[in-house]
Amino acid sequence: MICNNIKKENGHLHFAGLDTVELAKSYGTPTMLFDEDRFLGNVNTYITAMQSAFGEKSMPLYAGKALCFTHLYRLLREYNVGIDVVSSGELFTALSGGFPAERIYFHGNNKTDDDISFGVSVGIGYFVCDNLDELLKIDEIAGAQGVVQNILVRLTPSVDAHTYEAVNTGKLDSKFGVAIETGAAEEFIKTALSLKSVKLCGLHCHIGSQIFDAEPFVMATNTMADFCIHLKNTLGYNVEILNLGGGIGVRYLESDPEVSIADIVAEMGKALHNKLDSSPVEFPEVRLEPGRSLVADCGMTLYSVGAIKEISGVKNYVSVNGGMADNPRFALYNAPYTVILANRADEECDYPCTVAGRCCESGDVIQENVMLPRPVRSDIIAVLTTGAYNYSMASHYNRLPKPPIVAIRQGKPEIVVRRETLKDLLSCDIVLNVKE
Amino acid sequence: MICNNIKKENGHLHFAGLDTVELAKSYGTPTMLFDEDRFLGNVNTYITAMQSAFGEKSMPLYAGKALCFTHLYRLLREYNVGIDVVSSGELFTALSGGFPAERIYFHGNNKTDDDISFGVSVGIGYFVCDNLDELLKIDEIAGAQGVVQNILVRLTPSVDAHTYEAVNTGKLDSKFGVAIETGAAEEFIKTALSLKSVKLCGLHCHIGSQIFDAEPFVMATNTMADFCIHLKNTLGYNVEILNLGGGIGVRYLESDPEVSIADIVAEMGKALHNKLDSSPVEFPEVRLEPGRSLVADCGMTLYSVGAIKEISGVKNYVSVNGGMADNPRFALYNAPYTVILANRADEECDYPCTVAGRCCESGDVIQENVMLPRPVRSDIIAVLTTGAYNYSMASHYNRLPKPPIVAIRQGKPEIVVRRETLKDLLSCDIVLNVKE
Repeated sequence: MICNNIKKENGHLHFAGLDTVELAKSYGTPTMLFDEDRFLGNVNTYITAMQSAFGEKSMPLYAGKALCFTHLYRLLREYNVGIDVVSSGELFTALSGGFPAERIYFHGNNKTDDDISFGVSVGIGYFVCDNLDELLKIDEIAGAQGVVQNILVRLTPSVDAHTYEAVNTGKLDSKFGVAIETGAAEEFIKTALSLKSVKLCGLHCHIGSQIFDAEPFVMATNTMADFCIHLKNTLGYNVEILNLGGGIGVRYLESDPEVSIADIVAEMGKALHNKLDSSPVEFPEVRLEPGRSLVADCGMTLYSVGAIKEISGVKNYVSVNGGMADNPRFALYNAPYTVILANRADEECDYPCTVAGRCCESGDVIQENVMLPRPVRSDIIAVLTTGAYNYSMASHYNRLPKPPIVAIRQGKPEIVVRRETLKDLLSCDIVLNVKE
Repeated sequence: MICNNIKKENGHLHFAGLDTVELAKSYGTPTMLFDEDRFLGNVNTYITAMQSAFGEKSMPLYAGKALCFTHLYRLLREYNVGIDVVSSGELFTALSGGFPAERIYFHGNNKTDDDISFGVSVGIGYFVCDNLDELLKIDEIAGAQGVVQNILVRLTPSVDAHTYEAVNTGKLDSKFGVAIETGAAEEFIKTALSLKSVKLCGLHCHIGSQIFDAEPFVMATNTMADFCIHLKNTLGYNVEILNLGGGIGVRYLESDPEVSIADIVAEMGKALHNKLDSSPVEFPEVRLEPGRSLVADCGMTLYSVGAIKEISGVKNYVSVNGGMADNPRFALYNAPYTVILANRADEECDYPCTVAGRCCESGDVIQENVMLPRPVRSDIIAVLTTGAYNYSMASHYNRLPKPPIVAIRQGKPEIVVRRETLKDLLSCDIVLNVKE
């Protein structure tokens, strides 16, 4: 199995130690499962790897855009981690979970004035400042609130991570960050250092997603380290915090390579020490920003099989009672997923099919060319590795209520996000009188 | 302008007779505008065209998956139209708007048992039955509720509408419907006619979206008419209702062709009369299912400009305070849109840029290669023709609250869907105690 929290027992698929068929019966479908223990284990993996590679003052920041709900922050606040948020909505959620503001980093290519005011007013740790416009706005708003706001600056190190276009964010041509190679980054930093109501605490970069090799991370680390040295030598500026972003890959398919977070982080640590130990730069506090890499394999989505359509000589369609509304990643990126018939997990997978969603759109597919035992109506289909960018990207397309999230905590299931009701769908609707 | 409800006056963009800059000031951004009068005008265009082409008993069915909120059904119930729903959520919304159940058609490739029970129990007009599995389930559930349920059957007429893959639904290889060419349709109909608790009232097909020529519609009409004649001749079965689906194109760009709904409908009418008038088949009640074609040009989205990033020799990025969360169509399909700087609508458009969203994802773009006057922070950007598949596909990605919908009714703006609050985002979140 692609992750060791998944097993087959007595013909049923088990997740986080529980029988998924029983869970589907108890909670209905579609339902998203969340393996809380695995999540906390992944958090510890990062903490340990980072402390070993970068020293005690380093910490991972959980990137909430992958999966964001209140209880998750309640869990995280007990750990030596920070979080990254990208909107007032994520910030509000984290604060509602009791996560301390000073460990929060506010990201985004386009923070609004309201976002900045909200962040400053709650005493957020850092804005990761994306551009000059925003820098001046943060300075203005912090000044008006009578505080000095800590910031990092997001840089584009021009590392091409050879990943797919939509999530490749470290290139020069990016809506994110300030380019090192054009000289824009240095100008930005000079301006930041001249302002009264911001304190520039360090640098950030993020090169992309689903990267399985250490190499691109090492390249980015080297580029950022060189820039730290350059800043020290030219401006006398010492980078206190170096945030090297996220992007370590997760396995969606058996054919995906095994990933060792510890190894990749160790390589980055080695590179950073190589560059900085013999330089005039004091070794910075390092941050990484895993999102997907912390939550993807903690998630599994359970669906019920509905219509089965066999088009002779063409294709078999197996439709489930969810789809692009709860998981738009195949529609968006042709994303790969492993699909298992959960209630007949031991049977031979000799039936080729396309697992389609229920939305009225041809592109609503969960996965093509899947091999399953031939399903029948009411069978349970499990889609693996759905913890990241599924619930967080969920829409109400076709007016489908969002599924619940059931956390499994030390072998016990509990609802942490309840299923939406039909009435919930109308919560913003206002009915006006119609003129006669 | 691509639609006559859009004008430039005194340097500002006007929509449905109102100054969009004033609307942005009053309602904030992002906001979706909805031109109610245009919508009702479009409804009347279809009614008139259909009555002329197909006779008095014909009617359009509004396909709510394009845009679905309660007030819209309140408006529609006053007209001689039906609606199509694709989920319990859409059905519930329509009923909440007071739309009569008997004029509702329930669509979808994978209706759940709950959907069917709900539809039968409220006395829904018709299920548009997609497959044999579902047919038997409807018969079973209707039987258990002691009623005879009216149905149509969805057929795939194997017309290739030469439109893009994701919305091309009339082909043999489709998750939707029963194929005519394989003989599956005839078998389905024989079975349907043998069942006690369903009444087969007719046939349905839908060939795709954004079709600008009459030709594919005429081809589908001919195929369906031939099949009506075949059914009469072989089974003695008379099709009472013939539902020819939707798919008439709308203009997103100036370069898109002008569309005459009346002309396309007239061509379909001519084709149907040609086939049936000299046949033993009684002329059926015809249905069409416009969704996009009724609402797309009734919508406009207003954003505020935030960060502007000029990467020398590469690209200019203009970021707005929305994006793929409220309009995922560029991310999904590279969909074209017309973008206008609403508060400086008279100025020369000499600034090439990519209009990007605020989500933390490189693929979050509203439109590439746009020409605008060079924007500054707080300018208002209008994206045209956003009435269809924007609000209905909106997600909470990046935990962004959904924008409001402001209807403009006879020159007066009124909120018909309110803006979500940060608190709304937490409405399903449950916080558990964390173990010590």
